[in-house]
Amino acid sequence: MRLAELSELSGVPIPTIKYYLREQLLPPGRRVTATQAEYDDSHLRRLRFVRALIQVGRVPVATAREVLAAVDDDSLGRTFRLGGALWALPQPPEEPADDPDIIKATAIVDQLLEELGWTTSRDVGSLSPSYRSLVATVATLNRLGYTCGTAELAPYARHMERVAEHDIDRLDTFPGEAEKVEAAVAGVILVEPVLLMLRRIAQEEHSTRRFGL
Amino acid sequence: MRLAELSELSGVPIPTIKYYLREQLLPPGRRVTATQAEYDDSHLRRLRFVRALIQVGRVPVATAREVLAAVDDDSLGRTFRLGGALWALPQPPEEPADDPDIIKATAIVDQLLEELGWTTSRDVGSLSPSYRSLVATVATLNRLGYTCGTAELAPYARHMERVAEHDIDRLDTFPGEAEKVEAAVAGVILVEPVLLMLRRIAQEEHSTRRFGL
Repeated sequence: MRLAELSELSGVPIPTIKYYLREQLLPPGRRVTATQAEYDDSHLRRLRFVRALIQVGRVPVATAREVLAAVDDDSLGRTFRLGGALWALPQPPEEPADDPDIIKATAIVDQLLEELGWTTSRDVGSLSPSYRSLVATVATLNRLGYTCGTAELAPYARHMERVAEHDIDRLDTFPGEAEKVEAAVAGVILVEPVLLMLRRIAQEEHSTRRFGL
Repeated sequence: MRLAELSELSGVPIPTIKYYLREQLLPPGRRVTATQAEYDDSHLRRLRFVRALIQVGRVPVATAREVLAAVDDDSLGRTFRLGGALWALPQPPEEPADDPDIIKATAIVDQLLEELGWTTSRDVGSLSPSYRSLVATVATLNRLGYTCGTAELAPYARHMERVAEHDIDRLDTFPGEAEKVEAAVAGVILVEPVLLMLRRIAQEEHSTRRFGL
Protein backbone atom coordinates (compact mmCIF):
# COMPACT_ATOMS: atom_id res chain seq x y z
CA MET A 1 0.00 0.00 0.00
CA ARG A 2 1.02 3.63 -0.47
CA LEU A 3 1.54 6.19 2.32
CA ALA A 4 -1.98 7.63 1.84
CA GLU A 5 -3.58 4.24 2.39
CA LEU A 6 -1.36 3.51 5.42
CA SER A 7 -2.56 6.82 6.87
CA GLU A 8 -6.20 6.03 6.13
CA LEU A 9 -6.10 2.51 7.61
CA SER A 10 -4.24 3.59 10.75
CA GLY A 11 -5.95 6.93 11.28
CA VAL A 12 -2.47 8.48 11.69
CA PRO A 13 -1.96 11.69 9.63
CA ILE A 14 0.65 11.53 6.81
CA PRO A 15 3.00 14.17 8.37
CA THR A 16 3.06 12.12 11.61
CA ILE A 17 3.92 8.94 9.69
CA LYS A 18 6.74 10.80 7.91
CA TYR A 19 8.01 11.97 11.29
CA TYR A 20 7.97 8.39 12.66
CA LEU A 21 9.88 7.24 9.53
CA ARG A 22 12.52 9.97 10.01
CA GLU A 23 12.83 9.04 13.70
CA GLN A 24 13.19 5.36 12.71
CA LEU A 25 10.20 4.32 14.78
CA LEU A 26 8.85 2.77 11.57
CA PRO A 27 11.05 0.82 9.10
CA PRO A 28 11.28 2.39 5.60
CA GLY A 29 8.90 1.13 2.91
CA ARG A 30 10.09 -0.72 -0.21
CA ARG A 31 11.06 2.02 -2.67
CA VAL A 32 9.14 1.66 -5.98
CA THR A 33 9.95 5.00 -7.66
CA ALA A 34 12.24 7.90 -6.72
CA THR A 35 9.42 9.50 -4.72
CA GLN A 36 7.16 6.59 -3.75
CA ALA A 37 7.46 3.66 -1.38
CA GLU A 38 5.27 0.64 -0.79
CA TYR A 39 4.17 -0.39 2.74
CA ASP A 40 2.67 -3.66 3.98
CA ASP A 41 0.72 -5.04 6.94
CA SER A 42 3.84 -5.16 9.11
CA HIS A 43 4.13 -1.37 8.73
CA LEU A 44 0.48 -0.95 9.66
CA ARG A 45 0.92 -3.12 12.76
CA ARG A 46 4.07 -1.33 13.86
CA LEU A 47 2.48 2.06 13.22
CA ARG A 48 -0.46 1.21 15.47
CA PHE A 49 1.90 0.02 18.18
CA VAL A 50 4.02 3.21 18.00
CA ARG A 51 0.84 5.28 18.09
CA ALA A 52 -0.37 3.40 21.19
CA LEU A 53 2.98 3.95 22.94
CA ILE A 54 3.13 7.66 22.14
CA GLN A 55 -0.51 8.72 22.18
CA VAL A 56 -1.99 6.52 24.90
CA GLY A 57 1.15 5.61 26.88
CA ARG A 58 2.58 9.15 26.56
CA VAL A 59 5.98 7.59 25.96
CA PRO A 60 8.65 10.04 24.64
CA VAL A 61 10.07 9.26 21.17
CA ALA A 62 13.53 8.28 22.49
CA THR A 63 11.89 5.85 24.95
CA ALA A 64 9.66 4.41 22.24
CA ARG A 65 12.83 3.64 20.26
CA GLU A 66 14.24 1.69 23.24
CA VAL A 67 10.97 -0.22 23.65
CA LEU A 68 11.05 -1.17 19.95
CA ALA A 69 14.70 -2.26 20.18
CA ALA A 70 13.76 -4.70 22.97
CA VAL A 71 10.70 -5.96 21.04
CA ASP A 72 12.86 -6.64 17.95
CA ASP A 73 15.87 -8.19 19.70
CA ASP A 74 15.51 -11.80 18.56
CA SER A 75 18.67 -12.88 20.36
CA LEU A 76 16.53 -12.94 23.51
CA GLY A 77 13.72 -15.22 24.68
CA ARG A 78 10.20 -13.87 25.04
CA THR A 79 10.28 -13.06 28.75
CA PHE A 80 13.51 -11.08 28.42
CA ARG A 81 12.21 -9.21 25.35
CA LEU A 82 8.97 -8.44 27.16
CA GLY A 83 10.87 -7.47 30.31
CA GLY A 84 13.24 -5.26 28.30
CA ALA A 85 10.33 -3.53 26.57
CA LEU A 86 8.32 -3.00 29.76
CA TRP A 87 11.35 -1.91 31.74
CA ALA A 88 12.16 0.69 29.07
CA LEU A 89 8.80 2.40 29.68
CA PRO A 90 8.86 5.55 31.86
CA GLN A 91 9.21 4.48 35.49
CA PRO A 92 8.45 6.18 38.81
CA PRO A 93 11.44 7.84 40.49
CA GLU A 94 13.68 5.71 42.71
CA GLU A 95 13.02 5.79 46.46
CA PRO A 96 16.02 5.93 48.82
CA ALA A 97 16.68 2.29 49.81
CA ASP A 98 17.61 3.21 53.41
CA ASP A 99 14.25 4.91 54.12
CA PRO A 100 12.64 2.94 57.00
CA ASP A 101 9.22 2.95 55.26
CA ILE A 102 10.84 1.44 52.13
CA ILE A 103 12.62 -1.23 54.18
CA LYS A 104 9.33 -2.18 55.86
CA ALA A 105 7.46 -2.18 52.53
CA THR A 106 10.17 -4.34 50.92
CA ALA A 107 9.69 -6.94 53.67
CA ILE A 108 5.90 -6.89 53.12
CA VAL A 109 6.22 -7.34 49.34
CA ASP A 110 8.86 -10.08 49.68
CA GLN A 111 6.64 -12.00 52.09
CA LEU A 112 3.73 -11.60 49.69
CA LEU A 113 5.74 -13.04 46.76
CA GLU A 114 6.87 -15.92 48.99
CA GLU A 115 3.29 -16.71 50.06
CA LEU A 116 2.04 -16.55 46.49
CA GLY A 117 4.88 -18.74 45.25
CA TRP A 118 5.90 -16.10 42.71
CA THR A 119 9.51 -17.27 42.76
CA THR A 120 10.75 -15.57 39.58
CA SER A 121 9.51 -12.20 40.80
CA ARG A 122 11.15 -12.78 44.16
CA ASP A 123 14.48 -13.70 42.51
CA VAL A 124 14.42 -10.81 40.02
CA GLY A 125 13.26 -8.62 42.91
CA SER A 126 14.57 -5.10 42.99
CA LEU A 127 15.74 -5.27 39.35
CA SER A 128 12.11 -5.06 38.23
CA PRO A 129 10.55 -1.58 38.01
CA SER A 130 7.14 -3.12 38.77
CA TYR A 131 8.51 -4.56 42.00
CA ARG A 132 10.09 -1.24 42.97
CA SER A 133 6.90 0.67 42.15
CA LEU A 134 4.85 -1.71 44.26
CA VAL A 135 7.25 -1.30 47.19
CA ALA A 136 7.11 2.51 46.85
CA THR A 137 3.27 2.52 46.77
CA VAL A 138 3.00 0.17 49.77
CA ALA A 139 5.42 2.47 51.65
CA THR A 140 3.25 5.52 50.81
CA LEU A 141 0.05 3.78 51.90
CA ASN A 142 1.50 2.75 55.24
CA ARG A 143 3.10 6.17 55.76
CA LEU A 144 -0.36 7.73 55.27
CA GLY A 145 -1.83 5.37 57.86
CA TYR A 146 -3.71 3.10 55.44
CA THR A 147 -2.72 -0.37 56.64
CA CYS A 148 -1.26 -2.26 53.71
CA GLY A 149 0.42 -5.50 54.78
CA THR A 150 0.69 -8.93 53.19
CA ALA A 151 -2.84 -9.78 54.37
CA GLU A 152 -4.33 -6.74 52.60
CA LEU A 153 -2.33 -7.30 49.41
CA ALA A 154 -2.82 -11.06 48.99
CA PRO A 155 -6.49 -11.03 47.81
CA TYR A 156 -5.72 -8.31 45.25
CA ALA A 157 -2.65 -10.23 44.08
CA ARG A 158 -4.70 -13.39 43.54
CA HIS A 159 -7.29 -11.50 41.46
CA MET A 160 -4.58 -9.84 39.38
CA GLU A 161 -2.91 -13.21 38.86
CA ARG A 162 -6.12 -14.40 37.14
CA VAL A 163 -6.02 -11.27 34.96
CA ALA A 164 -2.34 -11.87 34.08
CA GLU A 165 -3.00 -15.51 33.18
CA HIS A 166 -5.76 -14.35 30.87
CA ASP A 167 -3.34 -11.77 29.38
CA ILE A 168 -0.74 -14.47 28.70
CA ASP A 169 -3.34 -16.82 27.19
CA ARG A 170 -4.35 -14.09 24.73
CA LEU A 171 -0.75 -13.80 23.45
CA ASP A 172 -1.05 -17.19 21.77
CA THR A 173 -3.41 -15.63 19.24
CA PHE A 174 -0.53 -13.53 17.80
CA PRO A 175 1.67 -15.16 15.11
CA GLY A 176 5.40 -14.29 15.56
CA GLU A 177 7.58 -13.53 18.57
CA ALA A 178 7.87 -9.77 17.89
CA GLU A 179 4.07 -9.64 17.45
CA LYS A 180 3.55 -11.46 20.77
CA VAL A 181 5.87 -9.09 22.64
CA GLU A 182 4.30 -6.06 20.94
CA ALA A 183 0.82 -7.28 21.87
CA ALA A 184 1.91 -7.85 25.46
CA VAL A 185 3.33 -4.33 25.80
CA ALA A 186 0.28 -2.80 24.10
CA GLY A 187 -1.87 -4.90 26.44
CA VAL A 188 -0.12 -3.46 29.48
CA ILE A 189 -0.42 0.15 28.30
CA LEU A 190 -3.86 0.03 26.78
CA VAL A 191 -5.67 -2.40 29.07
CA GLU A 192 -4.61 -0.72 32.33
CA PRO A 193 -7.11 2.17 32.05
CA VAL A 194 -9.81 -0.33 31.02
CA LEU A 195 -9.25 -2.40 34.16
CA LEU A 196 -9.37 0.65 36.44
CA MET A 197 -12.58 1.95 34.88
CA LEU A 198 -14.21 -1.49 35.06
CA ARG A 199 -13.34 -1.62 38.77
CA ARG A 200 -14.90 1.80 39.40
CA ILE A 201 -18.07 0.90 37.51
CA ALA A 202 -18.31 -2.42 39.37
CA GLN A 203 -17.91 -0.53 42.66
CA GLU A 204 -20.79 1.78 41.74
CA GLU A 205 -22.84 -1.27 40.81
CA HIS A 206 -22.17 -3.25 43.97
CA SER A 207 -22.42 -0.24 46.26
CA THR A 208 -25.93 0.42 44.93
CA ARG A 209 -26.94 -3.23 45.23
CA ARG A 210 -25.71 -3.47 48.78
CA PHE A 211 -26.53 -0.07 50.26
CA GLY A 212 -29.06 1.52 47.90
CA LEU A 213 -28.47 4.98 46.48
CA MET B 1 -3.15 16.44 70.60
CA ARG B 2 -1.23 19.58 69.60
CA LEU B 3 -0.23 20.58 66.06
CA ALA B 4 3.31 19.21 66.53
CA GLU B 5 1.97 15.76 67.45
CA LEU B 6 -0.52 15.80 64.57
CA SER B 7 2.41 16.52 62.26
CA GLU B 8 4.52 13.76 63.76
CA LEU B 9 1.78 11.09 63.62
CA SER B 10 0.74 11.96 60.06
CA GLY B 11 4.21 12.67 58.66
CA VAL B 12 2.78 15.91 57.22
CA PRO B 13 4.96 18.99 57.92
CA ILE B 14 3.46 21.71 60.17
CA PRO B 15 3.43 24.45 57.45
CA THR B 16 1.49 22.07 55.16
CA ILE B 17 -1.05 21.36 57.91
CA LYS B 18 -1.46 25.12 58.48
CA TYR B 19 -2.04 25.55 54.74
CA TYR B 20 -4.72 22.82 54.74
CA LEU B 21 -6.39 24.53 57.74
CA ARG B 22 -6.41 27.90 55.94
CA GLU B 23 -7.81 26.25 52.81
CA GLN B 24 -10.51 24.56 54.95
CA LEU B 25 -9.46 21.09 53.89
CA LEU B 26 -9.12 20.32 57.58
CA PRO B 27 -11.64 21.49 60.22
CA PRO B 28 -10.19 23.85 62.85
CA GLY B 29 -9.02 22.34 66.15
CA ARG B 30 -10.66 23.13 69.50
CA ARG B 31 -9.08 26.39 70.66
CA VAL B 32 -7.49 25.98 74.13
CA THR B 33 -5.49 29.21 74.40
CA ALA B 34 -5.20 32.29 72.16
CA THR B 35 -2.39 30.61 70.19
CA GLN B 36 -2.98 26.88 70.65
CA ALA B 37 -5.59 24.42 69.46
CA GLU B 38 -6.25 20.80 70.29
CA TYR B 39 -6.74 18.16 67.57
CA ASP B 40 -8.16 14.63 67.79
CA ASP B 41 -8.20 11.37 65.83
CA SER B 42 -10.78 12.71 63.40
CA HIS B 43 -8.28 15.42 62.39
CA LEU B 44 -5.56 12.81 61.93
CA ARG B 45 -7.82 10.65 59.76
CA ARG B 46 -8.96 13.60 57.64
CA LEU B 47 -5.39 14.85 57.28
CA ARG B 48 -4.25 11.47 55.95
CA PHE B 49 -7.15 11.42 53.50
CA VAL B 50 -6.37 14.94 52.23
CA ARG B 51 -2.71 14.00 51.90
CA ALA B 52 -3.64 10.90 49.87
CA LEU B 53 -5.86 12.96 47.56
CA ILE B 54 -3.27 15.66 46.97
CA GLN B 55 0.02 13.78 47.13
CA VAL B 56 -0.89 10.43 45.60
CA GLY B 57 -3.99 11.34 43.61
CA ARG B 58 -2.50 14.68 42.46
CA VAL B 59 -5.87 16.28 43.04
CA PRO B 60 -5.84 20.13 43.00
CA VAL B 61 -6.86 21.85 46.25
CA ALA B 62 -10.16 23.18 44.87
CA THR B 63 -11.08 19.67 43.69
CA ALA B 64 -10.11 18.16 47.05
CA ARG B 65 -12.57 20.59 48.66
CA GLU B 66 -15.37 19.32 46.38
CA VAL B 67 -14.48 15.70 47.15
CA LEU B 68 -14.65 16.46 50.90
CA ALA B 69 -18.01 18.23 50.50
CA ALA B 70 -19.45 15.08 48.93
CA VAL B 71 -17.91 12.83 51.62
CA ASP B 72 -19.42 15.00 54.39
CA ASP B 73 -22.88 15.53 52.86
CA ASP B 74 -24.99 13.43 55.23
CA SER B 75 -28.22 14.34 53.48
CA LEU B 76 -27.21 11.70 50.90
CA GLY B 77 -27.00 7.90 51.03
CA ARG B 78 -23.67 6.16 50.75
CA THR B 79 -23.72 5.45 47.02
CA PHE B 80 -24.55 9.06 46.17
CA ARG B 81 -21.88 10.37 48.53
CA LEU B 82 -19.34 7.95 47.08
CA GLY B 83 -20.45 8.78 43.55
CA GLY B 84 -20.27 12.52 44.27
CA ALA B 85 -16.76 12.17 45.71
CA LEU B 86 -15.45 9.98 42.88
CA TRP B 87 -17.12 12.09 40.22
CA ALA B 88 -15.48 15.21 41.65
CA LEU B 89 -12.02 13.72 40.99
CA PRO B 90 -10.19 14.98 37.88
CA GLN B 91 -11.71 13.30 34.83
CA PRO B 92 -10.49 12.70 31.28
CA PRO B 93 -11.66 15.28 28.71
CA GLU B 94 -15.05 14.76 27.08
CA GLU B 95 -15.07 13.05 23.69
CA PRO B 96 -17.46 14.41 21.03
CA ALA B 97 -20.59 12.24 21.28
CA ASP B 98 -21.15 12.22 17.51
CA ASP B 99 -17.73 10.71 16.75
CA PRO B 100 -18.39 7.36 14.99
CA ASP B 101 -15.75 5.56 17.11
CA ILE B 102 -17.46 6.83 20.28
CA ILE B 103 -20.88 5.70 19.04
CA LYS B 104 -19.48 2.21 18.31
CA ALA B 105 -17.67 2.06 21.67
CA THR B 106 -20.85 3.16 23.51
CA ALA B 107 -22.73 0.25 21.93
CA ILE B 108 -19.95 -2.18 22.98
CA VAL B 109 -19.93 -0.94 26.60
CA ASP B 110 -23.75 -0.92 26.83
CA GLN B 111 -23.89 -4.51 25.58
CA LEU B 112 -21.22 -5.46 28.12
CA LEU B 113 -23.20 -3.93 31.03
CA GLU B 114 -26.32 -5.72 29.79
CA GLU B 115 -24.53 -9.10 29.62
CA LEU B 116 -23.01 -8.61 33.06
CA GLY B 117 -26.35 -7.57 34.54
CA TRP B 118 -24.83 -4.31 35.83
CA THR B 119 -28.17 -2.54 35.64
CA THR B 120 -27.40 0.49 37.81
CA SER B 121 -24.36 1.32 35.69
CA ARG B 122 -26.43 0.93 32.54
CA ASP B 123 -29.14 3.24 33.90
CA VAL B 124 -26.70 5.87 35.19
CA GLY B 125 -24.76 5.42 31.95
CA SER B 126 -23.25 8.51 30.43
CA LEU B 127 -23.64 10.48 33.68
CA SER B 128 -20.81 8.46 35.20
CA PRO B 129 -17.25 9.61 34.43
CA SER B 130 -16.04 6.00 34.78
CA TYR B 131 -18.50 4.94 32.08
CA ARG B 132 -17.43 7.80 29.80
CA SER B 133 -13.73 7.04 30.38
CA LEU B 134 -14.28 3.39 29.55
CA VAL B 135 -16.11 4.32 26.34
CA ALA B 136 -13.29 6.71 25.36
CA THR B 137 -10.59 4.07 25.98
CA VAL B 138 -12.50 1.37 24.07
CA ALA B 139 -12.86 3.85 21.17
CA THR B 140 -9.09 4.54 21.19
CA LEU B 141 -8.22 0.84 21.28
CA ASN B 142 -10.45 0.04 18.33
CA ARG B 143 -9.27 3.12 16.42
CA LEU B 144 -5.68 1.85 16.84
CA GLY B 145 -6.69 -1.55 15.46
CA TYR B 146 -6.60 -3.44 18.80
CA THR B 147 -9.90 -5.33 18.74
CA CYS B 148 -11.81 -4.50 21.90
CA GLY B 149 -15.38 -5.70 21.79
CA THR B 150 -17.75 -7.13 24.41
CA ALA B 151 -16.04 -10.54 24.13
CA GLU B 152 -12.61 -9.07 24.95
CA LEU B 153 -13.94 -6.90 27.80
CA ALA B 154 -16.15 -9.46 29.56
CA PRO B 155 -13.40 -11.59 31.19
CA TYR B 156 -11.64 -8.46 32.50
CA ALA B 157 -14.96 -7.11 33.80
CA ARG B 158 -15.66 -10.34 35.70
CA HIS B 159 -12.23 -10.25 37.37
CA MET B 160 -12.62 -6.60 38.31
CA GLU B 161 -16.10 -7.35 39.70
CA ARG B 162 -14.44 -9.75 42.18
CA VAL B 163 -11.99 -6.96 43.10
CA ALA B 164 -14.84 -4.47 43.58
CA GLU B 165 -16.81 -6.90 45.77
CA HIS B 166 -13.71 -7.31 47.92
CA ASP B 167 -13.38 -3.49 48.05
CA ILE B 168 -16.98 -3.12 49.23
CA ASP B 169 -16.58 -5.89 51.84
CA ARG B 170 -13.60 -4.03 53.32
CA LEU B 171 -15.73 -0.90 53.86
CA ASP B 172 -17.64 -2.65 56.65
CA THR B 173 -14.53 -2.42 58.81
CA PHE B 174 -14.86 1.40 58.97
CA PRO B 175 -17.14 2.86 61.68
CA GLY B 176 -19.20 5.86 60.41
CA GLU B 177 -20.65 6.81 57.04
CA ALA B 178 -18.11 9.59 56.30
CA GLU B 179 -15.29 7.18 57.23
CA LYS B 180 -16.70 4.52 54.89
CA VAL B 181 -16.95 6.97 51.97
CA GLU B 182 -13.48 8.35 52.72
CA ALA B 183 -12.03 4.84 52.81
CA ALA B 184 -13.73 4.00 49.53
CA VAL B 185 -12.33 7.05 47.76
CA ALA B 186 -8.86 6.50 49.26
CA GLY B 187 -9.15 2.86 48.15
CA VAL B 188 -9.83 3.92 44.58
CA ILE B 189 -6.93 6.37 44.44
CA LEU B 190 -4.37 4.42 46.43
CA VAL B 191 -5.16 0.85 45.43
CA GLU B 192 -5.20 1.52 41.67
CA PRO B 193 -1.39 1.68 41.31
CA VAL B 194 -1.09 -1.42 43.53
CA LEU B 195 -3.41 -3.40 41.25
CA LEU B 196 -1.52 -2.38 38.10
CA MET B 197 1.88 -3.27 39.56
CA LEU B 198 0.58 -6.62 40.84
CA ARG B 199 -0.68 -7.38 37.32
CA ARG B 200 2.70 -6.55 35.77
CA ILE B 201 4.58 -8.67 38.32
CA ALA B 202 2.15 -11.57 37.79
CA GLN B 203 2.70 -11.24 34.02
CA GLU B 204 6.48 -11.49 34.48
CA GLU B 205 5.92 -14.52 36.71
CA HIS B 206 3.57 -16.37 34.38
CA SER B 207 5.51 -15.45 31.24
CA THR B 208 8.63 -17.04 32.76
CA ARG B 209 6.73 -20.11 33.91
CA ARG B 210 5.18 -20.64 30.52
CA PHE B 211 7.91 -19.59 28.10
CA GLY B 212 11.14 -19.56 30.14
CA LEU B 213 13.37 -16.50 30.14
